[in-house]
Amino acid sequence: MINPFFTNKGPFSIKDISSSLNIPIKKLSNKKNIKDVRDLFSAEKNTITFFYSSKYKYLANRTKASYCLTTKNLIYDLPKSCYPIVVENVLISVAKITEKFYPNSIHDEFDVTCKDINETNLSKKVRFGYNVLIGENVKIGTGCFIGHNSIIEKNVQIGKNCKIGSNVIIRNSIIKDNVTILDHSVIGKKGFGFFPNKNKNYRYPHIGIVIVHENCEIGCAVSIDRGSMSNTEIGRNTFIDNQVHIAHNVKIGANCSIAGQVGIAGSSILGNNIKIGGQAGISGHLKIGNNVQIAGGSGVIRDVPDNKKVMGYPAKDIRDFLKDNK
Amino acid sequence: MINPFFTNKGPFSIKDISSSLNIPIKKLSNKKNIKDVRDLFSAEKNTITFFYSSKYKYLANRTKASYCLTTKNLIYDLPKSCYPIVVENVLISVAKITEKFYPNSIHDEFDVTCKDINETNLSKKVRFGYNVLIGENVKIGTGCFIGHNSIIEKNVQIGKNCKIGSNVIIRNSIIKDNVTILDHSVIGKKGFGFFPNKNKNYRYPHIGIVIVHENCEIGCAVSIDRGSMSNTEIGRNTFIDNQVHIAHNVKIGANCSIAGQVGIAGSSILGNNIKIGGQAGISGHLKIGNNVQIAGGSGVIRDVPDNKKVMGYPAKDIRDFLKDNK
Amino acid sequence: MINPFFTNKGPFSIKDISSSLNIPIKKLSNKKNIKDVRDLFSAEKNTITFFYSSKYKYLANRTKASYCLTTKNLIYDLPKSCYPIVVENVLISVAKITEKFYPNSIHDEFDVTCKDINETNLSKKVRFGYNVLIGENVKIGTGCFIGHNSIIEKNVQIGKNCKIGSNVIIRNSIIKDNVTILDHSVIGKKGFGFFPNKNKNYRYPHIGIVIVHENCEIGCAVSIDRGSMSNTEIGRNTFIDNQVHIAHNVKIGANCSIAGQVGIAGSSILGNNIKIGGQAGISGHLKIGNNVQIAGGSGVIRDVPDNKKVMGYPAKDIRDFLKDNK
Repeated sequence: MINPFFTNKGPFSIKDISSSLNIPIKKLSNKKNIKDVRDLFSAEKNTITFFYSSKYKYLANRTKASYCLTTKNLIYDLPKSCYPIVVENVLISVAKITEKFYPNSIHDEFDVTCKDINETNLSKKVRFGYNVLIGENVKIGTGCFIGHNSIIEKNVQIGKNCKIGSNVIIRNSIIKDNVTILDHSVIGKKGFGFFPNKNKNYRYPHIGIVIVHENCEIGCAVSIDRGSMSNTEIGRNTFIDNQVHIAHNVKIGANCSIAGQVGIAGSSILGNNIKIGGQAGISGHLKIGNNVQIAGGSGVIRDVPDNKKVMGYPAKDIRDFLKDNK
Repeated sequence: MINPFFTNKGPFSIKDISSSLNIPIKKLSNKKNIKDVRDLFSAEKNTITFFYSSKYKYLANRTKASYCLTTKNLIYDLPKSCYPIVVENVLISVAKITEKFYPNSIHDEFDVTCKDINETNLSKKVRFGYNVLIGENVKIGTGCFIGHNSIIEKNVQIGKNCKIGSNVIIRNSIIKDNVTILDHSVIGKKGFGFFPNKNKNYRYPHIGIVIVHENCEIGCAVSIDRGSMSNTEIGRNTFIDNQVHIAHNVKIGANCSIAGQVGIAGSSILGNNIKIGGQAGISGHLKIGNNVQIAGGSGVIRDVPDNKKVMGYPAKDIRDFLKDNK
Repeated sequence: MINPFFTNKGPFSIKDISSSLNIPIKKLSNKKNIKDVRDLFSAEKNTITFFYSSKYKYLANRTKASYCLTTKNLIYDLPKSCYPIVVENVLISVAKITEKFYPNSIHDEFDVTCKDINETNLSKKVRFGYNVLIGENVKIGTGCFIGHNSIIEKNVQIGKNCKIGSNVIIRNSIIKDNVTILDHSVIGKKGFGFFPNKNKNYRYPHIGIVIVHENCEIGCAVSIDRGSMSNTEIGRNTFIDNQVHIAHNVKIGANCSIAGQVGIAGSSILGNNIKIGGQAGISGHLKIGNNVQIAGGSGVIRDVPDNKKVMGYPAKDIRDFLKDNK
């Protein structure tokens, strides 16, 4: 994944990594040759990756990473070019290493870099309301409106002709042309991702961003969290109603319609031309095909193939649901 | 419907209409004699109406409109006094004509007419917090409180003794006496109404308003959208809890109680003395009778007659539901 | 319950009480010896309590209150030391008496005591954004961040190293050390509690507060209402996702994880180490045991014992649910 916004503090040596994880690594070296942390697929030479479940064996086999955080019983599925680092809990170790590379990705305090828009160059370019604040590294195209009390925090790119409402907060996001965002929405905050720990849960970094493609409309009081290891994306011309919650790493295709109070849990991937009725929920890590229709109030807990209409909880074929519930 | 807030740019001639729709009309005239767009029932002489489904035949028969957007097979149900204009898609044509009459009803950018309340006459009349903004054409009665950072955008009438919390946004609405609105609510924005279109969905205008009657209470972070061709209404002494979403054209009666996170989809009509438990959902275009009770978490997808208690998804008689789910 | 924030206007005499309730009481006295209103359990000598249902008989038997609002058929369950005051509607009478002792607990208008943080001593101690407002009786520990436009209204104690986001509103709450609250959340407002009444519902006072214990994290746009006669509490190291609604008097244990859009109705009590999936709902007045797991989208309408995994609406054992819904 490309990280346009979070500064990579690497490269690090394997010795640095070893001491961060507080584990001994046999093949120690001081050479600062590890330049990034990546998933198995996008990893390149001189990056470190992670492999925690045999269901990713087919990706592990061909990873180009030089190092891999993994468990004892998985090391044989890695290619020779990839040096395994056996750890007790792969995901916690990934979190620690990611935080080492991208320390700024873990904190989401209010943006102290913000200034009154009148003190920035954008004041000549953008139509804006009272009390608009702009953070570091913000770019906004021509023809945009930014409503009262809205805060465009650091690391945001907004395209042309976008209409941002009032009391909106955006951070770590790319908003493409002709996008409308209504009042009270929050886009680009860290997702609900952490490892449970009795005294203090361990938060993992969110180095992904949110990308909202052209012509989208986002309603009032919508929350769209940024991704952890990948991005959260809303496809072009997708319309989202009020009070919808879209969790980290979710990817939604083009021309979708998502009604009020829908919730989509982390890492689910939705195709194009999908219609979702109000209050429906989609569990995490699912794949929803193109042209799918999900009735309002449904709870989707399994993948849905292309062109299917589903209803109920758990959601099933709409004809079966209506037959069973006459 | 009366439109107290949106300026009617008419009257237009049938020639103007013809060129807006980009369709030839036989009986062309330059006379600017079409003064409004109305539904079949409220249409008068010298207005244009629309008729797209045979289920409205009984209204079409007696409409007083002079012109009617309709389809080939419906023209015989119109009275002789009404000249039919056959179009491919009636609803898109209505949207175009409505936009022609009420161009301001389609845009919901932040209100650029807003001023700091200290620069208005209301500063002497109202008790208000920091950073309160007031738009054009706002009237507020005596004894009102407006909280910090709240924005009373253009076209709002607020009665006497109303308590508006902080971070509230209101537009195109009439709020009657003794109404309480808690923090972070948004009232009067356009609803989730559009015609799907591959490259860029086609938004239809929202010329309705929101009316909140006397003695109502609206919780935190509630969204109430204004109507498209009719109004959204909340009856007197109805109490609404936090995070409720009420879509466009919904009408709720008096003395109802609506618990947290309930969602009511567009154009549904609810009677008086209704109790709705938390997280329940009501589909669009339904009729819910007086004294109905809807259990929390239910999904109502059919009309509910007076005095009925329902539960489940789809909601059914509560005794049947509990018997089936012992 | 301890009421650290609401000023007790008592003591009152039984004559004062009698005239407030507009009922004759036989044993009238002018002595101002009633110092507080309490529930049956926490009542002491010289306080007034209430007893409205025989299911609380075991508490009524041993109450230490000197007076008790109750009904005709319940008076025999009170000890001799407690003088019964028979009223038509016990709960409405309690509301009236509570309002008499704590008149400030019934109104939740925006906080007129707020000042710009720059005019307070906190400006030297706290890292804060633009337009931060601080009410009366607010204490904030070292190492805290308060984001842009946030309003810390009256009667709030915030511990050390807390991170409060932007557009957050807090009132009548104790936030302990190392708590994170993300943007747009509202904490400590009155709950959805009232007695239905045709012309104007009768609101009962909320003299409870919200307590958020150490190391908690609260997501974006969450609402947590304060208690009516007891407190609303979130146990230490409990993490709450976006758009969650927690009603008055709810108590949640330590180390829980509550995903997006969950709703918990009033007075339910949850144990420790509970995991709740997105959009699940929990009815009011329930008891959920330790280590319980509730699947996303479930509707819990009965108590759940320790260590149980439940799913469905109404929620049942997850194995039964999945077997019934293959």
